[in-house]
Amino acid sequence: MSPSALEELVYQLGKLPGLGPRSARRMALSLLKKREASLRPLINSLEKVDSSIKECSICGNLDEQDPCTLCTHPTRDKSLLCIVEDVADLWALERAQTYKGLYHILGGTLSALEGRGPEALRIGQLIQRLPQLGELKEIILALNATIEGQTTAHYMLDRIKPFLPETVKISHLAFGVPMGGELDYLDEGTLSTALKDRRHVDA
Amino acid sequence: MSPSALEELVYQLGKLPGLGPRSARRMALSLLKKREASLRPLINSLEKVDSSIKECSICGNLDEQDPCTLCTHPTRDKSLLCIVEDVADLWALERAQTYKGLYHILGGTLSALEGRGPEALRIGQLIQRLPQLGELKEIILALNATIEGQTTAHYMLDRIKPFLPETVKISHLAFGVPMGGELDYLDEGTLSTALKDRRHVDA
Repeated sequence: MSPSALEELVYQLGKLPGLGPRSARRMALSLLKKREASLRPLINSLEKVDSSIKECSICGNLDEQDPCTLCTHPTRDKSLLCIVEDVADLWALERAQTYKGLYHILGGTLSALEGRGPEALRIGQLIQRLPQLGELKEIILALNATIEGQTTAHYMLDRIKPFLPETVKISHLAFGVPMGGELDYLDEGTLSTALKDRRHVDA
Repeated sequence: MSPSALEELVYQLGKLPGLGPRSARRMALSLLKKREASLRPLINSLEKVDSSIKECSICGNLDEQDPCTLCTHPTRDKSLLCIVEDVADLWALERAQTYKGLYHILGGTLSALEGRGPEALRIGQLIQRLPQLGELKEIILALNATIEGQTTAHYMLDRIKPFLPETVKISHLAFGVPMGGELDYLDEGTLSTALKDRRHVDA
């Protein structure tokens, strides 16, 4: 029907998250229509990323240097370690511009369905890393507020506890009503957590 | 926040149709996670498409050869010429496996908003092509059933009519209820067309 090189491109694009065959086809055609403005810059950019981006051997972040910019940053607070599932979550927290400590990326959650066991997560690396974190005062669990995220946090905590000095506090992100959230649209779980964890208002 | 090569890739991906910054980021991370299975095959595929796919100088189709496989096909019906907006529309018709004639791709519709005038469409090429179509008996208008598509069909017809032998019939695709369509969900325009063009049933 269509030439094989194009079919192959549609197949490759269709493997990306969130893309079906129809949007992959649309994308392939759009790339071919704008070769100079779109296709070639994309090829260059993919090649550059492939050759320059590596996984940080300490925290698991993706960066042009290993150890990454965050791990080697002179002024980041080395007393805080924030544990996230994924690089995307690290980016989200960095966008919020509130957290100035270190990170550790687990690389996913435990999932029986997707066949991801503990050995697929970067828990071993975390245990090896703990002795190097001499100034550590607090571990912040920032896994997704999903069943998988919370189960994984529990499991990981059990694994690392024997290696943690007792002085290190453990916390998790606050659960509650998201900013801009309308109560009417929130699920019961969020609402009951928000009620239970209600904060005193100085009136 | 994130390394510049990755930012650049997210920007390039975000230019593709239907992708916002969030899905582009997700896509970039997924590519980096699966370099062997996803990133490198995509680069190869894009490069192959860039070097091998050209626009057919006769009909405007995209193919590995020029003239394209459809234009040079020995058994396609040379008495039929189907006019479509885009390569994607040609593919859609080919998937339907009903039409066995030739195509001509206009390359879009007239659009004041997007600054696309008649010179941006392949109407001149169509006029030049007509004398070569010695066996032509019918032109099928298969532009999208949108205001832009139908306006463009009208305009194009006015332009090519002086060059068309009077024996050549002109037709357009049937408008009506799509297969599987529920009347309740169809717009008034489709329904009134479907009523006006109703067909006799031999009971």
